[in-house]
Amino acid sequence: MTTFDPLAITCPTPHAETERVLLGHGSGGQLMAELLRDVITPALGGGGVLEDAAVVSVAGTQIVFSTDSFVVTPRFFPGGDIGSLAVHGTVNDVAMRGATPVALSVAYVLEEGLPMTELRRITASVATAAHAAGVPVVTGDTKVVERGSADGIYLTTTGIGVRPPGVDPSAAKCRPGDVVLVSGPIGGHGMAILSARQDLGFDSDIVSDSQPLHLLVRTMLDVGGAAVHALRDPTRGGVASALNELSEASGVSIEVDEAALPVSPQVAAACETLGLDPLHVANEGCLIAMVAPESADRVLAAMRRRPEGVTARAIGRVGDGPGRVTVRTLVGSSRVLDMLVGEQLPRIC
Amino acid sequence: MTTFDPLAITCPTPHAETERVLLGHGSGGQLMAELLRDVITPALGGGGVLEDAAVVSVAGTQIVFSTDSFVVTPRFFPGGDIGSLAVHGTVNDVAMRGATPVALSVAYVLEEGLPMTELRRITASVATAAHAAGVPVVTGDTKVVERGSADGIYLTTTGIGVRPPGVDPSAAKCRPGDVVLVSGPIGGHGMAILSARQDLGFDSDIVSDSQPLHLLVRTMLDVGGAAVHALRDPTRGGVASALNELSEASGVSIEVDEAALPVSPQVAAACETLGLDPLHVANEGCLIAMVAPESADRVLAAMRRRPEGVTARAIGRVGDGPGRVTVRTLVGSSRVLDMLVGEQLPRIC
Repeated sequence: MTTFDPLAITCPTPHAETERVLLGHGSGGQLMAELLRDVITPALGGGGVLEDAAVVSVAGTQIVFSTDSFVVTPRFFPGGDIGSLAVHGTVNDVAMRGATPVALSVAYVLEEGLPMTELRRITASVATAAHAAGVPVVTGDTKVVERGSADGIYLTTTGIGVRPPGVDPSAAKCRPGDVVLVSGPIGGHGMAILSARQDLGFDSDIVSDSQPLHLLVRTMLDVGGAAVHALRDPTRGGVASALNELSEASGVSIEVDEAALPVSPQVAAACETLGLDPLHVANEGCLIAMVAPESADRVLAAMRRRPEGVTARAIGRVGDGPGRVTVRTLVGSSRVLDMLVGEQLPRIC
Repeated sequence: MTTFDPLAITCPTPHAETERVLLGHGSGGQLMAELLRDVITPALGGGGVLEDAAVVSVAGTQIVFSTDSFVVTPRFFPGGDIGSLAVHGTVNDVAMRGATPVALSVAYVLEEGLPMTELRRITASVATAAHAAGVPVVTGDTKVVERGSADGIYLTTTGIGVRPPGVDPSAAKCRPGDVVLVSGPIGGHGMAILSARQDLGFDSDIVSDSQPLHLLVRTMLDVGGAAVHALRDPTRGGVASALNELSEASGVSIEVDEAALPVSPQVAAACETLGLDPLHVANEGCLIAMVAPESADRVLAAMRRRPEGVTARAIGRVGDGPGRVTVRTLVGSSRVLDMLVGEQLPRIC
C-alpha cells in the first residue's frame, strides 16, 4: 500500500476559472462537463458533441457516429489492453444510441522508440477484438512523434453504425417511473487499472470488465423496443456521472438503492481500502438502461440470457419530478450522489 | 540559417528490421509503407487500411470513411493551425474517394497545462474551418494526459461522406495514357511549417496551402465522371510518394515533366537553400488527378474555374507499360523519382 503524501498530490483543485487544462478536465466528471459546456460545445455549435455518439441521417438511413481517444496507462492490464479497450469503447458508444456497429477506424499516435513488439501486440489485440465483435477495421492512420512527445502509444477509434427506424434511445428520454437496470458488476475496469499501475497492497484478481455490448443492446431493443428509453455505458466518472448526465438531460430525479448495486467483493474491498466510491469508478463492459416499468422485467430477463448480462439487475427508479440523483443507503437514509469532481484516476481509458 | 551539426541528427537511418518505432515510420514515405505492409495491415486484415479512406456500403448507400491524427508542430503556422489542418485533411481524404463529406468528429488529446486560450483558439479554428467547408462537427472526445505525456494537443478528425452511384476514383485505376493533373502549386505546406519551426534564413512569405478540396473534386467529377480515374492529395511524402503509391497500386509507369511542375519562386528558393526536392515536400491543399486523355482538357478547364484550381495544370502522363515514376528533367534527361525514404520533416501534419 502506498503511503499518503499530501505534497505528492498532483490532482488539481477543481476551479472553473482556471486558465490551463487540468487533469480533471479529462475525468468524465464535473470539470469535464464544464470544459465541454464552456469551451468546446459553444465553439463547435453541436448539441451532439455532448453525446457519446451522434446520429447523422444519410440518404434516409440513420448513421450513428462516435469517436474516442484512448490514453490508458498502463497499456496492458488484467482483462485487456489499450487495443481491445479502444475497440470495445467505440463499439459500445455506437451501441448506446441503439445502432449496430458496421465499421471502425483506428488512428495511432506512436512515440519514437516504442518497441515494435508492443505495436504488433496492440495491433493484434485491436484485430482480435474487432473480429470477435464482428466489426471490421476498414481504415486508419499512423503518426509518429519524437521521443518524449507522447507516452508510447495513443489510439483513436471511430465507429459508424446503422440504426433501425423507430429506435432512438437517448439521454433525454428518461421518464418518471422508469426502472434503472445495470447489466453487470461495477467498478471492475477502474480498479483493474489501478491495481496494474501501482503496488496497492491488494492482490489483483480484479479484471477489467472491458467487453463489447452491442449484442446485448440488440437483444434489449428486440425485446423492449421503444420502452428502452435511454442507454449509457458508465465509463470515466462511473455510474455516478452517467446517472447525473441522464438526470440532467431528462430533467428527472433518479434514486438508486445501494443494497442493489452489483459490486464484486474484490472491488468492494479495494474501494474501501482506497476510500473510493464504486459508483465513481470507471467501467468498460457494463451499461445502464432506463426502461419503462411495464417492460423492465422482460428486458431484464432477456439481458440475463446473454453472457454480458447474466448478473443484470434493477438498481433504482426515476422519480416523479425533477431533482437530483440520490442513493438510498444500506441504513435506509438518502444521500445525494454527485458527479465526480476533479480527477480520481487519470488516464483510465 | 541553422548550422549543420551531424551529431544533432535524430533522423534515424532507414532500416526495415528495426525493433523500435522510428520517426521515419510516420513520414508518409517508404518506411511508413513498410510499417503498414509488415505490421499494421496483416494484423488488421483490410486492404482498405492502406487507402486514405474506406468505402463502406450501408443500406445501399456508399459511405466513405476516413480518419487522421494531427500532431503538427508548431500548432500555429502561416496559413493555418492544427485545428484548420485537421478539418481540411479529413475533408480532403473523404473527397479523394469521390464522396461529399457530410459529418466530422474531433477527438482531443490534451496535455495538462495547455493554456486554455490555445484550446479555445484551436477549437474556434476547427469550428471556422468546418463551417467554411460546410461539414459540421457532430461528435467528439476529450482526453487529458499528464504534463510531459503529450506535446500540448493532438487532434484526430474522422469524416464520413456519401458517394454517388457510379463514382469510384481509386488508386488502382490509373490507365496508360492518363494525363496527370495537379490542382495548384506544390510544397507550400511543408515549407511553411519548416519556416515557422526554425529560423531558417528565408523570410517567410510562404504560406501553407491548407484548404478544403471537396468542392473542386465535385466539379471535376461533374465534368469528367468516370474519366477521373484516380485522385490523391499529396500530403506527407509529397507528390513523389503519392505518384509512387498510384504507380504501385495500378501497376503502371508515370512520367512527370519537371518543367511543368508548379512551384512558387519562394518555395523553389527555400527548397534549394535546404537541399530539398519540392516533390517530396508535403501539401495540404492540392490534389493529383489521373484523367483519361480524351477528358483531361475539359477537367482541367473546369478546375481552373474554381479558386482552389485556378493554377491547375497537366504535369505528366501514365506510360504504356508497368514501371517506375520518372521525371523528365529540365535538361531533357530522365531520373527515377522514389518515395521519400526515412524522415524529411517530422510532424508536418
